[in-house]
Formats: sequence, C-alpha cells, structure tokens
Amino acid sequence: MLKRLSADQYADGILAGNRVVLSQTITLAESTLASDQALTQQVLDRVLPHAGQSVRVGITGVPGVGKSTFIEALGLFLVNEQHKRLAVLAVDPTSQRSGGSILGDKTRMTQLAAHPQAYIRPSPAGRSLGGVTRSTREALLLCEAAGYDVIFVETVGVGQSETAVHGMVDFFLLLMLAGAGDELQGIKKGIMEMADAISITKADGGNELAARRARREYQNALHLFPATDSGWQPVVTTSSAVSGAGVPQVWEVIQNYTQQTQASGYFQRRRQQQNLHWLHEAIRHGLEERFYARPEVQVQLASLRQQVISGQKSAFGAAGELLGL
Amino acid sequence: MLKRLSADQYADGILAGNRVVLSQTITLAESTLASDQALTQQVLDRVLPHAGQSVRVGITGVPGVGKSTFIEALGLFLVNEQHKRLAVLAVDPTSQRSGGSILGDKTRMTQLAAHPQAYIRPSPAGRSLGGVTRSTREALLLCEAAGYDVIFVETVGVGQSETAVHGMVDFFLLLMLAGAGDELQGIKKGIMEMADAISITKADGGNELAARRARREYQNALHLFPATDSGWQPVVTTSSAVSGAGVPQVWEVIQNYTQQTQASGYFQRRRQQQNLHWLHEAIRHGLEERFYARPEVQVQLASLRQQVISGQKSAFGAAGELLGL
Repeated sequence: MLKRLSADQYADGILAGNRVVLSQTITLAESTLASDQALTQQVLDRVLPHAGQSVRVGITGVPGVGKSTFIEALGLFLVNEQHKRLAVLAVDPTSQRSGGSILGDKTRMTQLAAHPQAYIRPSPAGRSLGGVTRSTREALLLCEAAGYDVIFVETVGVGQSETAVHGMVDFFLLLMLAGAGDELQGIKKGIMEMADAISITKADGGNELAARRARREYQNALHLFPATDSGWQPVVTTSSAVSGAGVPQVWEVIQNYTQQTQASGYFQRRRQQQNLHWLHEAIRHGLEERFYARPEVQVQLASLRQQVISGQKSAFGAAGELLGL
Repeated sequence: MLKRLSADQYADGILAGNRVVLSQTITLAESTLASDQALTQQVLDRVLPHAGQSVRVGITGVPGVGKSTFIEALGLFLVNEQHKRLAVLAVDPTSQRSGGSILGDKTRMTQLAAHPQAYIRPSPAGRSLGGVTRSTREALLLCEAAGYDVIFVETVGVGQSETAVHGMVDFFLLLMLAGAGDELQGIKKGIMEMADAISITKADGGNELAARRARREYQNALHLFPATDSGWQPVVTTSSAVSGAGVPQVWEVIQNYTQQTQASGYFQRRRQQQNLHWLHEAIRHGLEERFYARPEVQVQLASLRQQVISGQKSAFGAAGELLGL
C-alpha cells in the first residue's frame, strides 16, 4: 500500500487535476481500514465545494450488448468533438478477478484509456455491494472535484448494483440488443423501468432493420408504462459503435434531459434527495454492520434463521429475541 | 381497549375458527404497546404450526379501477362456488379516517362481508408503513391458522405499500382500466413489473372492445419484459364485476400459477425467502427505531441533514459522525 499523504495534499492534488493523486485518493476511499476511511472523509470535506458540476450517467446492459465499445465510441465523441473531460467508473461487486473489473485492464477501451481528457477507473475487486457502491459514489465526487464534467458509471445489468447506481446518477441509460427474447432473460426485473433512455446497440452490418423494429417495439411498450417522476418520457434510439451512427444522438438525448429537468428544478431536487438517501443508507449500513458483528448475535442468528425459514418461529418474534440480546 | 386474554386462550380461539377471538388477536397485533407485541408473539408461536396452508394473493389498482367490486365478485365466486374460506386484509398506511380504511365500513362489499365463509378486516388507521405491513403480515398468519384457505391482501396502487405486500404474498394481481393513458399516471413505477397477472376491469356496458384491445397491448408489452424468477409468464385477462364475465378465469390463472410453482419448488422457496427477508427487515427496523430515538442523535441529525442536502458534507461523513455519538 502507498504511503499516505495529508488530507490537504490529496485535496490540492485533486483540485489541480492531478490524475495520480486522484487515483491514490480513490484507492484510499476503497480501503477498508478505519483510518483510511476517516482520511477519505477529510479529503471529501475539503473538495466537496468543488464537486457537483458534472452530468452523471449510469450505463448498463448484459454482457454481449457491446457496452465497452459503446462507451468507447460515445466517450471519444465527447472528448474529441464536445471537448468534455470524461471519467468512467465501474461497479462490479461480483467480479472475482484480482484487482480486476468488467473494464479489465483497460484493453477493452484502448483509445479512450489513452486519451488525456479521459479517466478510466476499474471497479475494486472482492468487495461487498455496499462497499463498492460507497467507494464508487466517493470516486464520483472526487472525479467531479478533479474537473471531469461527464461521469459514466458502468454496471453489468444482471445484478443488484443497478438500483444503487440509479441512486447516484442523473440519467440512466440501458443498452439492449435487437431480437428481444432470449437476450432479455438476463436483464433483471425493474431495470427497464429505471431507464431514461434505451439504445439498441449493434445497429450495423445488416442488423439495422431488426434494430429499428426493436426500437419501435420498446418505444411502444414504454408508452404503456407509467411516466417517471421527472415528467421525462424515456427515449429509445439505435446506435452502432462500429459505424458511429446514432452515437451523438444519445448525447443529445442526455442533454435534452438535463436541460428539461434543470429548468423544472427536478435535476437539483433529485440530487438533494439522493444525498439524503445516502446519508440514511450509510447509517443503516453502519448499524447493521455493528449488530451482526456482535458475537452473541452471531451465536443465536444461525438457529433462529433456520426456525424462521421453516416457519416454526415468526420473523418478528425472532427479530425481537435478537434485538433483546 | 379490550381486556387481554392469555396467549393460550387467543391461540385456542383462533384454531377453533372463532372470528371474535381472531379479530381481537389482530387488534392485539396492531397495538403499539410493547406488552401487546410480546403477547402477540406468544400467540403466533403457538399457532404458526397451523399457518401456511393458504394461497396468498396481493391485489392492487388505483382508485376508480373497481377494486372493491372486483374483490366482492371474485370473493363470492370463491366462497359460493369453490367452497373456499376467504379472508380479505387491507394495507393502507395513508388512510386518515379514524379506524377507517380503503375498505371503509364494509359497506362496499356488503354481500361478501355478510358471508359466513368470508372474513374482512380493514386496515388499521394512523400507523406507519412499517407498522401496517408488520401487523398485516401477522394478521395473514393468524387468518391462516383460523382456517382461511385464500387470503387477499388489498392495497391502493399509488404508494410504497405494494412492494411490502409483494413480499408477503404468493401471487400479485394488478387491476387496470382500459384506455391506457391518463389512468396509468397513478400507478407507481415498478408495480407493473411485480404483477403475475393483470386484469382489465369494467369490461362491460360497451367497454368490452376497448378492454380486449388493452389486454392485447399489455400482453405484448409484458412479453418484452424480463421473465420472472418463477419462470411464470404474466397473464392479462379482462373481467367484469357487473356481469361476472372473466372473474372465474382470474381464479384459474391463480391456480395454474400455484400448481406450476409448487411443482417446480419455487412456491415453497419463495415463502422461505420471504420469511428470511422479514426477519432481517424487522431487525433493521428495530435498530433504526432505537438509533433515531436517541436524544443526542436527534439533536445532531437536523443540521447534518441540511449540510448533506446542500452538498456541504458527504453523506458517509455525516453518517460516521452520527454513528460515533
């Protein structure tokens, strides 16, 4: 592990846009040591006034949908043509590779990874979902303070992490394949309802017609579904990371969304609600962590769980016994 | 308040199918007194071996969809033609009427309420969602022990209670109106994805064609959406509480579902998972209740919330401060 800097040194480096210091601070935020977590909070307190200025975009889709190539295509468009600074974070609590992630060794986004205006950060391995989402949210704030004005948070659309990511971004983009059917089985229930936009990927090489048909079907289906709290009607597009067709349109949709929701005040209100949500989540997480770590609770829990599963004991009764310990 | 019986007296009365004792025990479960809650747990421990034998059906839909008339029609079919014993519970945490509920004074289900094989229990008023869902789940178990073999749990499809009810039932039925559009605005996001079946109500009086068209549209839309964990493909039907058309078909769908999922083992597995879920929910609820009741937490919380909302302080940092008190 690296030698620790002072909170001021970390904060100054981040605010100066120093990528090495940014990476070191994110590593600090990922640490499970109590002293590192305390230091992270000190750094955050210093840089927070400079955070909050980016557009935060969650991107998900099952493996095979072409997420990395899509993110590389959209990312290069943003840094080269829109002159944005882009950070890409990954949330992948199930990853088992050592130090690895769904972004792997960045070889899957070679051009973007090498671009001076882009910053790619893989997901920390071997952490719980709670730990990963916590450090990802902190990494997001640190990247904002370092001057990145678009942040992508990438997940694999098969697990529970999408809800957590939805709770930390402004806009949620779902990537889908044409040929709705088997491919859909991998998408968790509820993810589609979180989407502010769906893009049907791989609309190229003779697949354009199927992609357009899928676009129509999803657009019709989404119209049947309830409006979002934002008043925004989800948009479905087609895109090709190979030809680049449809990639700028996705950015256009995101811009329309932010303009509309900033004008209505929803954008700011949602961020405030997200902040509060994370406060109470963190409290809950801390309370549960302490409770389940108590030796007397651990001794009782296993047998009470069995009695509750089998229906011998009521859930509330068993909870009362444990809380009374 | 009624004089308390002993745990054995409550349990014996319930197991004998005594409706007066059943009602008294549910009132006990709804009480916020610690002594009443402890007594409720003793009663539950005694009757639990006799619970679990019913089919638990959640029913939701926005006001105006004709929920009460539908439940009366389906309920009368069950008690009169299927010779079932039916209990109807309501979850309505937002109800402000004193002692009232969405079922009101039972005048909305007059025939069913008067039927000896049916038991209708309004939602307790003035309780938090956590309190209502807890007492509803306990009422459900008590009704099962009293020999009711079908339990309906009714909610208004506009709030947060649907998720809680989905977590305590085997089958979730959503009632919808034809003319998808404005009516849908009232349905909360996510509710449609929980549905094992949708029935388009009021398919009568010249509305049949629109209802059939809505049925097709929803069936097509649901096909686009991910399969449920159960392997069950949600079914859309039309029904009329006035003519009775389509009402027995809803029961047929529920029976198909239970047969299929009991054969696959999903039905039993889901109930076990629900039991465990409620155990950990109850623990969480208890931990949070104690934490937020601490005077020193209350003193700090208000100002920390403000700092977190405005982005001056990170959520995790503020949580750490509160947990350290």
